[in-house]
Amino acid sequence: MRKGYFITIEGGEGAGKTTVFNELEKRIRQKGHQVVRTREPGGVQLAEQIRDILLHTKDIDMDDRTEALLYAAARREHLVKKVIPALEEGAIVLCDRFIDSSLAYQGYARGIGVEAVRAINEFAVEDYMPDLTLYFSVKPEIGLARVKKDQVRDWNRLDQEKLDFHKRVETGYNLINEEAKDRVQVIDANQSMEKVIEDTLRIVEKHI
Amino acid sequence: MRKGYFITIEGGEGAGKTTVFNELEKRIRQKGHQVVRTREPGGVQLAEQIRDILLHTKDIDMDDRTEALLYAAARREHLVKKVIPALEEGAIVLCDRFIDSSLAYQGYARGIGVEAVRAINEFAVEDYMPDLTLYFSVKPEIGLARVKKDQVRDWNRLDQEKLDFHKRVETGYNLINEEAKDRVQVIDANQSMEKVIEDTLRIVEKHI
Repeated sequence: MRKGYFITIEGGEGAGKTTVFNELEKRIRQKGHQVVRTREPGGVQLAEQIRDILLHTKDIDMDDRTEALLYAAARREHLVKKVIPALEEGAIVLCDRFIDSSLAYQGYARGIGVEAVRAINEFAVEDYMPDLTLYFSVKPEIGLARVKKDQVRDWNRLDQEKLDFHKRVETGYNLINEEAKDRVQVIDANQSMEKVIEDTLRIVEKHI
Repeated sequence: MRKGYFITIEGGEGAGKTTVFNELEKRIRQKGHQVVRTREPGGVQLAEQIRDILLHTKDIDMDDRTEALLYAAARREHLVKKVIPALEEGAIVLCDRFIDSSLAYQGYARGIGVEAVRAINEFAVEDYMPDLTLYFSVKPEIGLARVKKDQVRDWNRLDQEKLDFHKRVETGYNLINEEAKDRVQVIDANQSMEKVIEDTLRIVEKHI
């Protein structure tokens, strides 16, 4: 039985997820809860081995569907070996990216199809969905500018391709969030970091 | 476009697949066809890496669904990088085990469920199914006796477990074959090897 609470964090690049995540973790610990902060593959041996294949074979032209199946396999193993045991012990699990990332990036932005990618991920997670998903919504231009902030070079064709891709990711997330309103809380991450943190804590405190 | 012809070979252990396969390959070559004989992962680098994980982590207790996703990923890569290019060049591809093995072994015999395993494999192969599947039907007792033929020890508990498992695999195949009558040809592999080869060649010659 799930005694704990399962929270996932989603969003495009430059949404400030890590900063907010740090603050959220600190605050929940201060309230006396047991917290397990993780991200796939999260130190699970077999999942790490799968991740190695995903990361070290970028030079080979990996098929998009092979990649999606490998992510689903790593997700399954991380879920079964780490997330579920922690939840069964009553922990609050904070997981950086989960099923929605695959739907937005691989399903929508890479063009495999959201429903097709959902099918293999439902096989992977069965009914084990997050209790709450925090989606940090940032305009692709703002997110990309934050990521590029320390770079002094000019805008180039690669940046434009990146921007187009980020826009597709955003559209994908919007579609997915629309279908999962009960689970997903959208946070406006175009605001100042202080305001984003404040909004996040208010939402989470309502739930746990 | 698929100019070649895609044949898969299925069956439980001890069905004599390899012997028949050798004869079949020889005969088709003699008729002047280009033949590509393969089995997953079939020398495809990325698929081999996935297979390494499957084979070298037997000591870790790998989750059944993780395993099924990894097989589907290796299948995808082998199909896209080896089978489809060969078919496009007009070859007759003979593949030892394909999607039906996952349905029978992982879906049915291991208890994940045939439809669930079918879903992830349909994601992997899309519409790229074999033109013809040869199923070598052997009674589990006979198949296991053939495999054990050179072993001099007595029957033990492990053998009984194996037999029970083989019976489940057989039941799984029967269900799958029933639903794919247009594609699957069942060959009685309880007969003498000469007769099995004769039946096989007769069926294949009707198709190519």
